[in-house]
Amino acid sequence: MLISESALRTFTKNIFLSIGCSDEHATLAADVLLRADLRGIDSHGVARLTGYVRLWEKKRINTSPNIQIVHETPTTATVDGDAGLGLVVAPFAMKIAIQKAEQFGSGWVAIRNSNHFGIAGYHALMAVEKDMIGYAMTNASPLVAPTFSNERMLGTNPMCYAFPAGKYAPVIVDMATSAAANGKLEIAQRSGKQVPEGWIQDKNGNFTTDPHALKSGGSLLPLGSDRGHGSHKGFGLSAVVDIFSGVLSGANYGPWVPPFVAFLEPATNPVGQGIGHFVGAMRVDGFRPADEFKAHLDNWIERFKSASPIDPAQKVIIPGEPEAEAEINTKKNGIPVVDAVVNDLNELAKKFGISPLA
Amino acid sequence: MLISESALRTFTKNIFLSIGCSDEHATLAADVLLRADLRGIDSHGVARLTGYVRLWEKKRINTSPNIQIVHETPTTATVDGDAGLGLVVAPFAMKIAIQKAEQFGSGWVAIRNSNHFGIAGYHALMAVEKDMIGYAMTNASPLVAPTFSNERMLGTNPMCYAFPAGKYAPVIVDMATSAAANGKLEIAQRSGKQVPEGWIQDKNGNFTTDPHALKSGGSLLPLGSDRGHGSHKGFGLSAVVDIFSGVLSGANYGPWVPPFVAFLEPATNPVGQGIGHFVGAMRVDGFRPADEFKAHLDNWIERFKSASPIDPAQKVIIPGEPEAEAEINTKKNGIPVVDAVVNDLNELAKKFGISPLA
Repeated sequence: MLISESALRTFTKNIFLSIGCSDEHATLAADVLLRADLRGIDSHGVARLTGYVRLWEKKRINTSPNIQIVHETPTTATVDGDAGLGLVVAPFAMKIAIQKAEQFGSGWVAIRNSNHFGIAGYHALMAVEKDMIGYAMTNASPLVAPTFSNERMLGTNPMCYAFPAGKYAPVIVDMATSAAANGKLEIAQRSGKQVPEGWIQDKNGNFTTDPHALKSGGSLLPLGSDRGHGSHKGFGLSAVVDIFSGVLSGANYGPWVPPFVAFLEPATNPVGQGIGHFVGAMRVDGFRPADEFKAHLDNWIERFKSASPIDPAQKVIIPGEPEAEAEINTKKNGIPVVDAVVNDLNELAKKFGISPLA
Repeated sequence: MLISESALRTFTKNIFLSIGCSDEHATLAADVLLRADLRGIDSHGVARLTGYVRLWEKKRINTSPNIQIVHETPTTATVDGDAGLGLVVAPFAMKIAIQKAEQFGSGWVAIRNSNHFGIAGYHALMAVEKDMIGYAMTNASPLVAPTFSNERMLGTNPMCYAFPAGKYAPVIVDMATSAAANGKLEIAQRSGKQVPEGWIQDKNGNFTTDPHALKSGGSLLPLGSDRGHGSHKGFGLSAVVDIFSGVLSGANYGPWVPPFVAFLEPATNPVGQGIGHFVGAMRVDGFRPADEFKAHLDNWIERFKSASPIDPAQKVIIPGEPEAEAEINTKKNGIPVVDAVVNDLNELAKKFGISPLA
C-alpha cells in the first residue's frame, strides 16, 4: 500500500502525541521515523511505532524527558536522555555537537539513558546540512555473538559516517556491524526462506541457514561471519560502537543493554542507564575549503561509479546513493507500507482514538 | 632467528640515518617499526625497511621534510608531510591532535603528502598514554575492488580505535577493511598454499583460492567478501578511510594513491599529494571521569572474556590483547625475524656500510 508522506507523517505524529509527547517532540520523532521510510529503510520507520508504544506502556520510555548535558568541555559533552525516545534525544545531542563544531571545529557527544534512536543516518545527516562530516552510532539489544562465542553479547550496533558532496547526494555509510541486519532475518522468517550461511549460528555455534535459529538460542554473527573471513573485525567494530555508546557515556553495554522488544525485561543488575549513543560533527572547512572538498568528493564518486563492473548491468553503488534515490521517489509517489504494518498502525489508531490510515 | 629489541632498534635507526634522516627522525621511525615487530605484527615492522629505502632511492621519500600545519581551527588541522616518512609525519600530526584535545577536549588532524605510516596502532596508542581515545587511519596502494567491481580501487585502508583500560591492556581495534590483509596473502604465496574463498577474486571477479591471482589482474575483496555477506559494508568502511585520509586532507585517493612498492610508478595525473592519513584524540574525561571509564572498560573486558565459548579451549579474544601479550614476550625474549628478512636487512647493511645483524 502506498501512503503519502504527509498522511503518514500526520498519523505518526498523532501517535506520539497520544503517548504524551510534546508537539515539538512528536513532530521530531515522526520526522526521524518518516525519514527511514522515505529512504527505503522500512525496518527502522513506522514499522517500529508499535514497539515504541509498547515500551512506553511498560514505562520504559519517558515521553516528557528532561534531556540535559551532565558533563562538558568546549568540544565534548555527555547527555542524559532521561529515558526519553532516542528519536528526540539523539537530535538534541547532535545539535550540541554541531554548535560545538561551529565554534571550535568539532563536537562530540556521548548519550546515556536513551532508547532506540531510529536510523543513524538521520542524525549524521544533520551535520551534513551544515557542511560538516556527521558521525552517529548506537548500541542495541544483545543479539550478536563475538568471534569464538555462542553468547549474545552485542547489538547489531550500527555506525554511520556522512560526508557532504557537491552535485551528488552525500556519501553516507550507515551499517550494522553484524553480517546481516536483524531486519533481513525477519524478512526470511516471514517468507519461510532459508538464509545464507554466515548470517547466524545455532546455540552450539554452528552455522545454520534456519532464520528461526535466534529463537532457540542462536545468535547473529559479526560482519566477516567467521574467523577466516574477518569476523574478529566485525566484532571489533561492534565493540568500538559499544564502548563509545555505553562505556563512555555511562549507559549499559554488552549483554546489559536493555532489549528493544517490550516482552523481554531489562537486566536486573544494570551497569549504566538505558542504551547509549555517540554522535559527532566536524567542519569540513576545519581541514580544507568546503567547496574544494566537495569538488574532490564529486570526483571520488564519479571515479568509483565508473570502476570496471564485473557485470556491465550492475555498476558500483556509492554508499548512500540508493537511499537518496528512494527519497526522491517516495516523496513524489508515496511510501510503500506492507499490509501487516498498516494493520498494526490501525490497531494503534483504534487504541488511541485517532483516524486510521485507510 | 631471535634478535634483541635493542640490537634491532639500533640497526633500524642506523639505516634511517644512512638515508639522511635526522637523529630525531631516525629514532622515531625506528620506534614505529620496532613497535610493530614487538607487537607481533611483523608484516609492518622491519620487514618493510627495504621498501622504505627503495622509495627513498626513487626520490619518492624526502628524509629531511619540512612537516607543517597548512590549515587549522582550535580542534582541527591539516598537515603537509612534505613527502616525508609516514613514520615521522603521523606522530607529528598525532602530537598536534593530542595538544588540541588537552586544550579543547578533542583534536583531529588530516595529513597529506605522506608515505606509509607503519601500524595505525602506534599512533592511536600515543593518545591512550594520555588517557585519551586514539583514532588513526590511512589510505594505501590500490589493491581492493569495491563490491560489484573487478578493479583495484582502494587500499587495505586500516582503521584503528584505541581505548585506555584500567588493569588491562588498552582495547585496540586495528584492522584492515579488506577481508584479509595483504600480509596474509604473501604468507600463502611463499608457502605455496591456497587461500580461503572470499579473500580474493580473479580478474573476472570470480572467487579464487590462488594466492597469486593478484599478479594476474585479480584483487583483494572488502571485509564481508561478497554482497550477501556484507562486502558493501567493508567497501563502505574502506571508503570512509579513503575520504578522511585523501579527500579531506588533499592527498591522493582511490586508484590515484601512489603504490608502496617502488617498482610501480605513481599515477601521472595525481588528484592530490602523496598518500593521506587521519588521526584524532579525545579526552576520556571530556565525557566522564577517566577512572570511572577505565573501571567500566575493565568490567567490559572481563564480561567479554567470560562469554560462553563455543570451544572451551578458545575463549573470546579482546581486541588488542594478543598484541599486548606479544609485546611482553618479545621485550623479554627477543623478536623473531624470518631468515629472508634478516638477509634483506644485511644486504642493506652492506650497501650502507653498517654492522650486519648477525
